[in-house]
Amino acid sequence: MAARKLLRRAGREKAGKFLVEGSQAVREALGGARVHDLFVTPAALERNPELIAAAEADGVPVTIVTDRAAETLSDTVTPQGLIAICDLLDVPLSTALDGAPALVAVLAAVAEPGNAGTVVRAADAAGADAVVLAGDTVDPHNGKAVRASTGSVFHLPLARERDTGAVLDACRAAGLTLLAADGQGELDLHDPAAAEVLARPTAWIFGGEAHGLPETVAEAADHRVRVPLYGRAESLNLATAAAVCLYASAGARRSRITGVPVTPGSSHEAIKKV
Amino acid sequence: MAARKLLRRAGREKAGKFLVEGSQAVREALGGARVHDLFVTPAALERNPELIAAAEADGVPVTIVTDRAAETLSDTVTPQGLIAICDLLDVPLSTALDGAPALVAVLAAVAEPGNAGTVVRAADAAGADAVVLAGDTVDPHNGKAVRASTGSVFHLPLARERDTGAVLDACRAAGLTLLAADGQGELDLHDPAAAEVLARPTAWIFGGEAHGLPETVAEAADHRVRVPLYGRAESLNLATAAAVCLYASAGARRSRITGVPVTPGSSHEAIKKV
Repeated sequence: MAARKLLRRAGREKAGKFLVEGSQAVREALGGARVHDLFVTPAALERNPELIAAAEADGVPVTIVTDRAAETLSDTVTPQGLIAICDLLDVPLSTALDGAPALVAVLAAVAEPGNAGTVVRAADAAGADAVVLAGDTVDPHNGKAVRASTGSVFHLPLARERDTGAVLDACRAAGLTLLAADGQGELDLHDPAAAEVLARPTAWIFGGEAHGLPETVAEAADHRVRVPLYGRAESLNLATAAAVCLYASAGARRSRITGVPVTPGSSHEAIKKV
Repeated sequence: MAARKLLRRAGREKAGKFLVEGSQAVREALGGARVHDLFVTPAALERNPELIAAAEADGVPVTIVTDRAAETLSDTVTPQGLIAICDLLDVPLSTALDGAPALVAVLAAVAEPGNAGTVVRAADAAGADAVVLAGDTVDPHNGKAVRASTGSVFHLPLARERDTGAVLDACRAAGLTLLAADGQGELDLHDPAAAEVLARPTAWIFGGEAHGLPETVAEAADHRVRVPLYGRAESLNLATAAAVCLYASAGARRSRITGVPVTPGSSHEAIKKV
């Protein structure tokens, strides 16, 4: 069936649609995307009566398909027999950055779909307002990226822009301080000097797995921030570093809003107690 | 060759040895493990002259093998032609917890080797003194776990103990506060009330991917701590949550030691400035 073409990036971009597989993801899609069609095997229909009813209530055409047909639409080892066809999720950059965002994650030249999805999930968890994929980047509609995000691709605006410079300009115009995550950065994430910076409205810029951030991108940021390495590890992986950075921002903002520090040593009373 | 048996857990446990593949991992093994043998293809020999010389200087027998023989010792898609046979790394629990540890990561019933390796890497980066694998757990000498750790399995003591209760007792006896990472935990990682707790010598306990922490383990901890979810994500993945928790401890300890807060809002001056 023609929907098979959506397994490939070129097919998705031509059709402006992508595939969403499995009950959890389809449930999220019904809440966060425009769903055109739902294909379901008899077994999956039996397992997910409420979900199918919800789709029908939303006016989504539901088609019963054979296991074999469902397999041809799946890129997983264990097809779940439940596949939705949805409009691509990405919005224009200006839309993603609309409304005075406080926390944005920019992925520059990230190639591995699992990493992209995991960072989208962490960004969602940390309360980010948007995720922007900049430069030559993986497609967030790739099946593995969607699965790794565990629904988060449907939770917050995603934008794509090949011109990384334009992304940085737009973030700055949106009032965001640009922080480049950089293992060699001059600012230590846990340094007291970083505290004031972290509480600002921030766009975190994360580089690809293999080569990190291009030097020009790192230099264009307001600060290059390194996650301190207290042990002997030479680095953190992309998703882990991104989660630590985004949560540092979330914590700093919360602490600033409540006026109460997140970490100890911050009041003399706490120092005396411990 | 007999070394092939080391690709399987039972073979590793019987022989007390495991396989380490690739130049980066073998370099780390030479510095952090007892290496018995090094197998190298002619091509890998040519690519890694200094590494082979270092092995020979350490008295490690180096054997030239065919590409085909090297492939039989590899569980990767692209074998690197360089494989060391090393003694298993794990030490007794009492050894791992020796010397007043300040930060320990306990993995309870973690099944996925990539996750285990990624947490070991994050624990190393955050300055943990040891990693303990408790209960029915993945073997940290599994090839995928070793690769995901990017050398960190060689950097800090690893212990394994099937009796999770004994692990908790030993951690407590070592002066550690037990914090169970738990999405339903009563203590919010970013709550000011958590600050004093986080700065203590801590054993973080992380549960498996599928079912999280067993209730008995969570209840036995001193506190159950949740990573706050600021957005709409329902959870974080294990490795991401572990990194955020371990770095929160590292930051809290550093802040306590320096007497300067890691996050803003902690001095009135900072509040005024931002």
